[in-house]
Amino acid sequence: MPQYNRDLISRAERGVQLVECVPNFSEGRRPAVIDAIRAAASSVPDVSVLDLHADAAHNRMVLTFVGSPRATVEAAFRCSVQAASLIDMREHRGEHPRIGAIDVVPFIPVSGVTMAECVALAHELARRMADELDLPVYLYAEAATRAERRWLPNVRKSEYEGLRIAITRDPNRAPDFGPRRLGSAGATAVGARPFLVAYNVNLRTSDLALAREIAASVRHSSGGLPAVQARGMATSDPEVVQVSMNLLDTRQTPLHAAYEAVLSLAAGRGVGVAGSEVVGLLPQEVLAATFEHAVQATGFTARQVLEYRLLDTLAASGEPAPS
Amino acid sequence: MPQYNRDLISRAERGVQLVECVPNFSEGRRPAVIDAIRAAASSVPDVSVLDLHADAAHNRMVLTFVGSPRATVEAAFRCSVQAASLIDMREHRGEHPRIGAIDVVPFIPVSGVTMAECVALAHELARRMADELDLPVYLYAEAATRAERRWLPNVRKSEYEGLRIAITRDPNRAPDFGPRRLGSAGATAVGARPFLVAYNVNLRTSDLALAREIAASVRHSSGGLPAVQARGMATSDPEVVQVSMNLLDTRQTPLHAAYEAVLSLAAGRGVGVAGSEVVGLLPQEVLAATFEHAVQATGFTARQVLEYRLLDTLAASGEPAPS
Repeated sequence: MPQYNRDLISRAERGVQLVECVPNFSEGRRPAVIDAIRAAASSVPDVSVLDLHADAAHNRMVLTFVGSPRATVEAAFRCSVQAASLIDMREHRGEHPRIGAIDVVPFIPVSGVTMAECVALAHELARRMADELDLPVYLYAEAATRAERRWLPNVRKSEYEGLRIAITRDPNRAPDFGPRRLGSAGATAVGARPFLVAYNVNLRTSDLALAREIAASVRHSSGGLPAVQARGMATSDPEVVQVSMNLLDTRQTPLHAAYEAVLSLAAGRGVGVAGSEVVGLLPQEVLAATFEHAVQATGFTARQVLEYRLLDTLAASGEPAPS
Repeated sequence: MPQYNRDLISRAERGVQLVECVPNFSEGRRPAVIDAIRAAASSVPDVSVLDLHADAAHNRMVLTFVGSPRATVEAAFRCSVQAASLIDMREHRGEHPRIGAIDVVPFIPVSGVTMAECVALAHELARRMADELDLPVYLYAEAATRAERRWLPNVRKSEYEGLRIAITRDPNRAPDFGPRRLGSAGATAVGARPFLVAYNVNLRTSDLALAREIAASVRHSSGGLPAVQARGMATSDPEVVQVSMNLLDTRQTPLHAAYEAVLSLAAGRGVGVAGSEVVGLLPQEVLAATFEHAVQATGFTARQVLEYRLLDTLAASGEPAPS
């Protein structure tokens, strides 16, 4: 049995290339508009829409899709064409900060793709939105061309209403691509960022102050682990408190490193861990990294996972991405 | 971000159902026959052929494919039609023990499928092979109806040549389905078994006797871990020896339990682990179980893995299995 599998492994040269794209649009109320945007993404053959979340209070929708690098750019563009024609920012009201109809479009490497490639995808989409839709586009996060634009809130400062004036007057608010004026579709932030993992570690104690103290120790902003946000929280069980984390870049701080830091800080105070939980999805790579660490399986790759290999086979036999 | 992913998780009710099937055919030399058998499997829409291994000395081929439960039965049947008409056991010579053209067909649960369901698939295929191809079929492993047939070598005893006579005379060699006589295609063993994981743990010592001693302690046959085969081996590095294992059922002994047993026995002798390796493929479930154990992530499921979810989406949008 082992020998056949060994053949199998050596056969795959490259593996499936997967990019996730999570565009946010300023529409969370009109079903016809939401459907049109979603349908535009689904119309690209090599793209799978994994999720749609629309929120009426925020008046905003978040679409999650994955696909090959080229296909995700095409899908993001097709959604943008719909959103730009169907959403009028002059009439938009909602609780969430926003600068445009296609408010923000991040590209996220999932597998077989580097961050640099996702930055290139962001540049490609940004240029196309500017050229074909006449939209001002700001590059943000890993794709940013100016240091202050790495942080999205800086790009969205003063929102659509304030940016309408600032874009024409303030040289620091000039877009990376497109005109220095806002039309009815507003502006867009396009960027690249790592996959965010929401991860909680539960502590077997009622001491909320301890959870907050440990959260402060592990969070990056107070000198803790790189790319980790953390806060201490109560849970529904009065005997359990939680260190709730966002792992912004699991290559900098792997999930198991975050777990072990909390475990060790709690143990130092005589408190045990009552389990941990991943909220939502996890890329195969993160799982494989924890596996490799847990059993010292140096050189183990996500490609050795049967389901991943199957995905690879399906991708290879699928239709080519649109040009 | 977390909230959207939470929605996503709750959406999936059932997840993708995947069965692996690894039929062995008594042909490892004639390319046209090998191709015809492979093509028969590929002709089923909902099946992906992951590997083909043909060996001229054994004069045998091993096909590995995965798919939905119904599709794998259909693919196994279509391969069998080809093999039964193209292979004549009266002329077959090869080093590997065999009783027929379609020598052995195991069904292996990969995800979303129980062993009992795979046993039912084995029964379904066995009946169809008997009814439509007039082949004698023995149920083996988890699908066995007689205790001694749980062990495949008992079914293959005396091989094609010996079974030709024994099947007509010995009531204990009567097949579960089909006639009590062997034709040119011989007989077939059809069964269900867990996924086999080939897993090695390396020890930082030149002491081969220690590796053999630890192998003896962990292997099931000498009172060790359930469903574990193990032996001590040298490696290409004279300072490293290896405990080489087959994990026959990772639900009985998870991969991390095998690792930890070897780690602990070696540590008791003052020897450290120099890494471990998975040879070939690993089902997502095994990876998820190790992850759950390593970070106490109670309730984590393979379905939370992004690539797995994608597979689910692709499966849902794919063509239905043939009837």
